[in-house]
Amino acid sequence: MRKPKIVILGAGYGGLMTTVNLQKKLGVSEAEIVLVNKNDYHYETTWLHEVSAGTLHHDRSRFKVADVIDKSKVKFVQDTVVDIKTAEKRVILENGELEYDYLVVALGYESETFGIKGLKEYAFSIANINSARQIREHMDYIFATYNNEPVKRDELLTIVVGGAGFTGIELVGELANRVPQLCKEFDIPREKVRIICVEAAPMALPGFDPELVEYAVTQLERKGVEFKIGTAIKECTEDGIIVAKDDQVEEIKAGTVIWAAGVRGSHLIEKAGFENMRGRVKVDPYLRAPGHDDVFIVGDCSLVINEEINRPYPPTAQVAMQEGVTCAKNLAVLVRGQGEMEVFKPDLKGTVCSLGHDDAIGIVFGRKLFGSSASFMKKVVDNRALFLQGGAGLVMKKGKFNFF
Amino acid sequence: MRKPKIVILGAGYGGLMTTVNLQKKLGVSEAEIVLVNKNDYHYETTWLHEVSAGTLHHDRSRFKVADVIDKSKVKFVQDTVVDIKTAEKRVILENGELEYDYLVVALGYESETFGIKGLKEYAFSIANINSARQIREHMDYIFATYNNEPVKRDELLTIVVGGAGFTGIELVGELANRVPQLCKEFDIPREKVRIICVEAAPMALPGFDPELVEYAVTQLERKGVEFKIGTAIKECTEDGIIVAKDDQVEEIKAGTVIWAAGVRGSHLIEKAGFENMRGRVKVDPYLRAPGHDDVFIVGDCSLVINEEINRPYPPTAQVAMQEGVTCAKNLAVLVRGQGEMEVFKPDLKGTVCSLGHDDAIGIVFGRKLFGSSASFMKKVVDNRALFLQGGAGLVMKKGKFNFF
Repeated sequence: MRKPKIVILGAGYGGLMTTVNLQKKLGVSEAEIVLVNKNDYHYETTWLHEVSAGTLHHDRSRFKVADVIDKSKVKFVQDTVVDIKTAEKRVILENGELEYDYLVVALGYESETFGIKGLKEYAFSIANINSARQIREHMDYIFATYNNEPVKRDELLTIVVGGAGFTGIELVGELANRVPQLCKEFDIPREKVRIICVEAAPMALPGFDPELVEYAVTQLERKGVEFKIGTAIKECTEDGIIVAKDDQVEEIKAGTVIWAAGVRGSHLIEKAGFENMRGRVKVDPYLRAPGHDDVFIVGDCSLVINEEINRPYPPTAQVAMQEGVTCAKNLAVLVRGQGEMEVFKPDLKGTVCSLGHDDAIGIVFGRKLFGSSASFMKKVVDNRALFLQGGAGLVMKKGKFNFF
Repeated sequence: MRKPKIVILGAGYGGLMTTVNLQKKLGVSEAEIVLVNKNDYHYETTWLHEVSAGTLHHDRSRFKVADVIDKSKVKFVQDTVVDIKTAEKRVILENGELEYDYLVVALGYESETFGIKGLKEYAFSIANINSARQIREHMDYIFATYNNEPVKRDELLTIVVGGAGFTGIELVGELANRVPQLCKEFDIPREKVRIICVEAAPMALPGFDPELVEYAVTQLERKGVEFKIGTAIKECTEDGIIVAKDDQVEEIKAGTVIWAAGVRGSHLIEKAGFENMRGRVKVDPYLRAPGHDDVFIVGDCSLVINEEINRPYPPTAQVAMQEGVTCAKNLAVLVRGQGEMEVFKPDLKGTVCSLGHDDAIGIVFGRKLFGSSASFMKKVVDNRALFLQGGAGLVMKKGKFNFF
């Protein structure tokens, strides 16, 4: 009898958690498991703001997929997914094709620019390891260029971050730590550099506890970050951005613009024809795509409604990893044809938002945290993610222990 | 009685050697000594190919002027020279003016592009610390960009060095060592990267011993450097260079073009009205500008003829530093109004050309050197320059001891 073939697309939080849980649950004879990923490594998406700012080397935020999978049970294919043909139960790759009996789509997020003119062309976005280290190198190059110009252009040194949501705030926190290092490296007075965070909503970190938000904004302003709240980016140009607040339009010249205000699910979701909202599929209680009993969707391409507030859970690593656990359990039930599938219910332990390596805010188990205790907790969260993906060995290799 | 005022312009090899020798020779009461320099640091110009390639951090190749001058005898002014008015015995600075009784012009070199179209706009040149680290950061950025593009452009990774003279050869030697590190850092296969050295003359290192040149070229080719000898750069564009060999015209697309084929003396020499050839003044036997008994010119702005072969000595650090010693002696004679000025006669100990940190060629005390012994000698030469400028302490701080 042919073993059922499970194909998992993507080795991000959702896909990798599905894989490592599945390889524990299923025996070699029970199923063929194939994991497809563009790169031979997994990266910690939630650490990319540090890589982008240049405060953490990219090699510290990634590890080889081969190091955490059980090669006797999982076949790893390094390739890029081009399309999914659900009717034929086939996946088209750049360099081949795969058939499946069960499919797990864990293709992650993309930047969402909401049609704002020039953002795609002129702004950077934190999409992956490649783009994060490009941001780092761009800033290095801009700072290295400054002192070479016959007439110095201070605006080159302005860094604009679009969005004061979670990613935007964490990014400016790192930048506030990084900029003094850059100034020292390239003989530039600190006061020449501006870090500007622009947010269209009427507050930073919309939806977060107001007391924590006030703490965050005050701390970041103390480190030299300027906030422009209630201010929308209208356009991004070669020279910077054009913003509007009420009816006031202003141009902010900047050598670096980083868009950190919107994400959406993979464009492959739309291409494959799944019913979706901005690349996210509202999955059934077992994490399957509606109308596709053989296709699970986990991570940022999935949409799960929080019934208590009738709004979607945010696309976080925490939710993606918990989906991976449930997805693996449900796949085991289907493969064996026995037992009951589990209904996915996120268990939100809390949220911590870093403000640089030495400060943070958060709510953990319902308790508000500030400063060093929140910063400590952030590193615990980061190390826990590593532990769930690759065990204690991975934590020792890539973990964050600069607690104080 | 007013003390005579000696103003030294530039803290490069020539100016700094004049200063440190002068402060040893003259007492506090004998003269007022003022040293003017654009930066608060001196840098080792002969190490800039390493800074540019990214194999040596720029802070390793510079030190504070304040660390080597005797503040009781020398006043240091950090400013940029704008013009020299010899008739009025005045120097115009960006932020002030200085009068002098004796002037030492040690304003160094500039890049000479011989009118080749586009070089100024699109090619980098190794002029100083600022430009060297910009080259390093540019290459980092280009390599970081490569994997972000939807269609990868291999030509981005091509590095063209214009000129296979001393600087060009030393630069490609460092690049050959640096490129594998860049490839590892940015996940790029080594074979995608080309290092091309273009030289218009019919051989690399024109004028150098042919056996040594052959060794150098063979070793560098083995490390992946491509030579295009007898090939002239006709134009530099945004996309690369256009070269011609015999009547064959070829475009070489490149993400980085570094011009290392020509230097000239400072443009201020011409502006001040000294008789000159490409910013270099043919000085009298005591190193004075013809017709100016109170103006000494040392370093790359001076031109001294080697009578034996009736050609100018090359503008090297070795000659500049020896000129500084003679210049200081002669100034002491003039200030005291006693003794005889010394005729400048270079004592050429040899030349060593590095081929990366682990290889070199050279002629030292008339003996040919290859490989590790030449590489060792190169580091001895570098450390000796530091010793002459700032003593044993400076050698310990900035010296090169990675001998093997």
